[in-house]
Amino acid sequence: MTETAIIGASGYTGIELIRLLAHHPELHVACVTSRQYAGKKVSRVFPSLGGFTDLTFEAPDPKSVAAKASTAFTALPHETAMEFVPKLLAEGLKVVDLSADFRFRNAGVYAEWYHTHSSPELLAQAVYGLPELHKEDVRSAQLVGNPGCYPTSAILALAPLLKNRRVDVSTIIVDSKSGASGAGRAPAQGTVFCEVNESFKAYKVGQHRHTPEIEQELSFVAGAPVTITFTPHLTPMNRGILTTVYARILGDPTTEGLLEEMEAFYRDEPFIRVLPPESFPATSNVTGSNFCDLGLRVDGRTGRVVVVSAIDNLVKGASGQAVQNMNLMLGLEETAGLRLVPVFP
Amino acid sequence: MTETAIIGASGYTGIELIRLLAHHPELHVACVTSRQYAGKKVSRVFPSLGGFTDLTFEAPDPKSVAAKASTAFTALPHETAMEFVPKLLAEGLKVVDLSADFRFRNAGVYAEWYHTHSSPELLAQAVYGLPELHKEDVRSAQLVGNPGCYPTSAILALAPLLKNRRVDVSTIIVDSKSGASGAGRAPAQGTVFCEVNESFKAYKVGQHRHTPEIEQELSFVAGAPVTITFTPHLTPMNRGILTTVYARILGDPTTEGLLEEMEAFYRDEPFIRVLPPESFPATSNVTGSNFCDLGLRVDGRTGRVVVVSAIDNLVKGASGQAVQNMNLMLGLEETAGLRLVPVFP
Amino acid sequence: MTETAIIGASGYTGIELIRLLAHHPELHVACVTSRQYAGKKVSRVFPSLGGFTDLTFEAPDPKSVAAKASTAFTALPHETAMEFVPKLLAEGLKVVDLSADFRFRNAGVYAEWYHTHSSPELLAQAVYGLPELHKEDVRSAQLVGNPGCYPTSAILALAPLLKNRRVDVSTIIVDSKSGASGAGRAPAQGTVFCEVNESFKAYKVGQHRHTPEIEQELSFVAGAPVTITFTPHLTPMNRGILTTVYARILGDPTTEGLLEEMEAFYRDEPFIRVLPPESFPATSNVTGSNFCDLGLRVDGRTGRVVVVSAIDNLVKGASGQAVQNMNLMLGLEETAGLRLVPVFP
Amino acid sequence: MTETAIIGASGYTGIELIRLLAHHPELHVACVTSRQYAGKKVSRVFPSLGGFTDLTFEAPDPKSVAAKASTAFTALPHETAMEFVPKLLAEGLKVVDLSADFRFRNAGVYAEWYHTHSSPELLAQAVYGLPELHKEDVRSAQLVGNPGCYPTSAILALAPLLKNRRVDVSTIIVDSKSGASGAGRAPAQGTVFCEVNESFKAYKVGQHRHTPEIEQELSFVAGAPVTITFTPHLTPMNRGILTTVYARILGDPTTEGLLEEMEAFYRDEPFIRVLPPESFPATSNVTGSNFCDLGLRVDGRTGRVVVVSAIDNLVKGASGQAVQNMNLMLGLEETAGLRLVPVFP
Repeated sequence: MTETAIIGASGYTGIELIRLLAHHPELHVACVTSRQYAGKKVSRVFPSLGGFTDLTFEAPDPKSVAAKASTAFTALPHETAMEFVPKLLAEGLKVVDLSADFRFRNAGVYAEWYHTHSSPELLAQAVYGLPELHKEDVRSAQLVGNPGCYPTSAILALAPLLKNRRVDVSTIIVDSKSGASGAGRAPAQGTVFCEVNESFKAYKVGQHRHTPEIEQELSFVAGAPVTITFTPHLTPMNRGILTTVYARILGDPTTEGLLEEMEAFYRDEPFIRVLPPESFPATSNVTGSNFCDLGLRVDGRTGRVVVVSAIDNLVKGASGQAVQNMNLMLGLEETAGLRLVPVFP
Repeated sequence: MTETAIIGASGYTGIELIRLLAHHPELHVACVTSRQYAGKKVSRVFPSLGGFTDLTFEAPDPKSVAAKASTAFTALPHETAMEFVPKLLAEGLKVVDLSADFRFRNAGVYAEWYHTHSSPELLAQAVYGLPELHKEDVRSAQLVGNPGCYPTSAILALAPLLKNRRVDVSTIIVDSKSGASGAGRAPAQGTVFCEVNESFKAYKVGQHRHTPEIEQELSFVAGAPVTITFTPHLTPMNRGILTTVYARILGDPTTEGLLEEMEAFYRDEPFIRVLPPESFPATSNVTGSNFCDLGLRVDGRTGRVVVVSAIDNLVKGASGQAVQNMNLMLGLEETAGLRLVPVFP
Repeated sequence: MTETAIIGASGYTGIELIRLLAHHPELHVACVTSRQYAGKKVSRVFPSLGGFTDLTFEAPDPKSVAAKASTAFTALPHETAMEFVPKLLAEGLKVVDLSADFRFRNAGVYAEWYHTHSSPELLAQAVYGLPELHKEDVRSAQLVGNPGCYPTSAILALAPLLKNRRVDVSTIIVDSKSGASGAGRAPAQGTVFCEVNESFKAYKVGQHRHTPEIEQELSFVAGAPVTITFTPHLTPMNRGILTTVYARILGDPTTEGLLEEMEAFYRDEPFIRVLPPESFPATSNVTGSNFCDLGLRVDGRTGRVVVVSAIDNLVKGASGQAVQNMNLMLGLEETAGLRLVPVFP
Repeated sequence: MTETAIIGASGYTGIELIRLLAHHPELHVACVTSRQYAGKKVSRVFPSLGGFTDLTFEAPDPKSVAAKASTAFTALPHETAMEFVPKLLAEGLKVVDLSADFRFRNAGVYAEWYHTHSSPELLAQAVYGLPELHKEDVRSAQLVGNPGCYPTSAILALAPLLKNRRVDVSTIIVDSKSGASGAGRAPAQGTVFCEVNESFKAYKVGQHRHTPEIEQELSFVAGAPVTITFTPHLTPMNRGILTTVYARILGDPTTEGLLEEMEAFYRDEPFIRVLPPESFPATSNVTGSNFCDLGLRVDGRTGRVVVVSAIDNLVKGASGQAVQNMNLMLGLEETAGLRLVPVFP
């Protein structure tokens, strides 16, 4: 059993980590922190976890964490993570960080979209934790920057096409639709039930911070700079991201041919499910699970390919992927604790 | 008072017509038909209408309809409409048809996406009922083909850009998201509550029948053939369509400049609301009303413009627009019966 | 045209008043106040209202309000209302207050469930604004305490039974289910979308402040003290309250007989719809309207009657009823501005 | 590994069994039947199950089932189950039946609320599968009648109070609220998304078939005939039942005292979670899990106790409880395959 800590455990990704790790055969949660709830029992704050944990929230303290755990998941806000993670690394812990702070290779890009980075030297050492692209690097990492939810859905949809040079990389459009848990658990005007329910809207059109993260990884796969148009939307449901990707095709590929290439690209990946022709993902088919479902269609009329991906934003888009990364970092079975069947309906 | 009939009044667009016309100062519903409910009181089948109508559903019969009404809204399935509408026209009624049967100028296009047309000669006489584009033709029409819900949202978003030649018409992508009332009231596996709720999915990717309808009208505005990629999605809510449109810009327009052109294009249109820069529509802001809200942003990074439109699919996307058309056909105030404030939340 | 003001107009009941009054033929909104949004245009804060109002939110000031309006709706929090309303009355305005502050006849009861009342002398003069019970008093009132949402649904369900002495008043149980707009627009942990969506819960079991309000009015109708058990529940939807009432029957009434008595009791009430035997209300049949739908059934097996009522909590449960009261106070048609057809689906 | 079959596997309880058994260490699904989908792969019909099963739906045939499995879950409609189950028993299988056909001890009660029973002799041998009441009988049963969803929530809420004679059994009222998956997966007017969403309603008031099932078990616990008033309601969410129970208390028990008795009553039950005073269940805290959460409060004002229970209707209310029963019948760990953490949010 490896002891682990969850730093910033009172948001939706934090309690999702507790849920997933309760099913994990080799990782044991020894410590959960929350400034807001320090001193309160986890199961009183989150009754869903009753019977699964006797832990009490603690104030976050690196020394105290290191005394209890050799690994940590940090689910802190941007900037806060940047300050806390180096202290855990200094104590020798392996860390999967769920914030944006260690996802970028280039401190300048980070500074442009977020703010100045206080530990730019760590960016070179941190690994972008999308196992389907960086598995070997993740295995040997001490620090993994866990991908954002939208980027996970977009990159997995596009990687095979870019790798095989099937699309014009200057024509990529990413249209994403997210459930409301992506907005977090903190109360805000925009997340009040009646503001979200029975409504659908776009937000941060052309300006969302996940844009450069998607571009970084698509450029990596394509071996050349890729710029995209990205529009996120808010959907009245708890969990799930559906991403619809558009690009102009090069040459004359068929739907079947591109699906076969996609299958081949993800052959050894336990959490990718490529759907048959004329089938497309629905978010309800991945709820509660670590799967990314993928479908595509070549539109001969317009010379474009449309790829559709679906993930649970709290699992493959956050906490599940974090566990997947930690499994790899510890040399465990990649799927340990993550063989959960989607909950449908 | 002008007497009117609603043929096929037991679907969601049918009862929405009854709702809207209950608020109408000059149109009176004299007859509602439904094969399924013939002989039953409307208010027993739809208790929401209790106190607003004493009508009983009748079996559809052109002679009987003509005896009671001089105008009609036909809310019948494709093919059925094509058979029934000519009989009403022969009786001298003015007709707004909500099916796809009279939306196309070209019987060949209709045949390709639907089936062979039984009254192709009527296509030349029917007017496509998008008042913002064809107002004068609607005024003098005896038969209006009322636009589809997705086309309304897409065409209104793009018309000013195409008219002013601001975008490369070969790069247009239309990504639409619809509430479930668009799928109709008839029970089907795909519309069962638990199959729709907490799920988001794409469907008929690249193959939806509204594609040629959008292309017909965009080509009309652009003065040249336009081909688009269109993807519809199903959203877990009752009402509303949000459409996100992407296109490559020509020249170097600004967000503010394109918004001003949009304002100018729709200056005299009572149901178009253009939002200020950095504001984007949400479907909940138009629920129950005949508005189409519009917002856009030029993305300098990628040389694209993103336009977002929102309508209530049952009002501006169907029954409200039908009333707007009938108002014009009868020489009434265009907004008669339609000055309804959106119901938020 | 009578000029009116809405004090505290930025909550859900406030903007619902703006919506309803936009349809009103004789009441004109001259002034809306909001501390939070003072100086901002209403239509920028609430885009749903775009095109219907040019008003700007003002800070609340009694003198300034009185300069513009002769009537006011106060939609302020408890205690705040108690301070503000007397100032409006002193300026000669007629006031419908939507808080709890003027609903009670007995300052002691108010003090027990809320806090000490600062203007107990006004309680004698204020009228409880349930027109179905107190219409004549409302007509002559200067100050109306507008009923709570739950009480409206419960009292209307029970009044005919109590008036006709059909039930044992010691056995009354009121089980209510409310949509989330009843919790208000202010962000709070409990109203975050993901905390409400896909969940159903009871709250304030046996301790909700609407209990004494229900009891006051049931006692009035029964002519004797009535004590009830009341449980409110939160339902994942925007609007609507469904209340299920249980009581032991006296004598041997039939379902049909009690429905007839209910019909008779509400014969002249324009907003009460009594459903036929074996039909029961659904909240979706009253959404957006001022109706209260009622159904009941006598259960011979157990000697109980079950009554079910449905209202839109923001309309008949708040702003619609407030307009209904103001209409009466001004000698207008009781239904002015309120003949809105429910929006279904 | 014990081989098992799921008969009638294409409804929501059927696929929930497949989901739960995919996590089960000792039960293996060897055969799934469905008339509707015979010959189709399970994972094509239910993409959520992709990667977890290679099974193909078969037409139901007792011999064929018996050749593959020694145990079976029957998830067939009433009457159909009654015909099929005896054939499986004759083949020597142990059977948990999820229909109502084997829940009643008295064929006359069954006949009164359902229809004539074709195998009344089996009623004496079948065990009512609520392990919290009948664990020893379940262990030795060949046939278990798995409880209905509403009865599970109601009986578990009331059993400790009745056992300890804390309430007047003539005053029990059960007010239940269910998510829409309880209505099944078959398309019907009443389960169309837009008819359920944003609506709350009561149905089958005083006439629901679960009434006599609740009464049978409450009478068993009380040791005397118990008659109740039961009202089911439909809630716009996928999963979950919340039941609110009312009864007059005998003597002068306190909230704390009754909660302690409830704790004691369920001390050894792994799926019952009794909440602390002033805490009440929410269905979202049990979603996807086999838990029943319980809370209660004594209302001194009215001399009543209010008990609130929450279950996932598809798990503890159906398939999870069925697995729990089968575990007991096979001498396995009662919780095998069922230690799933609720999915929140």
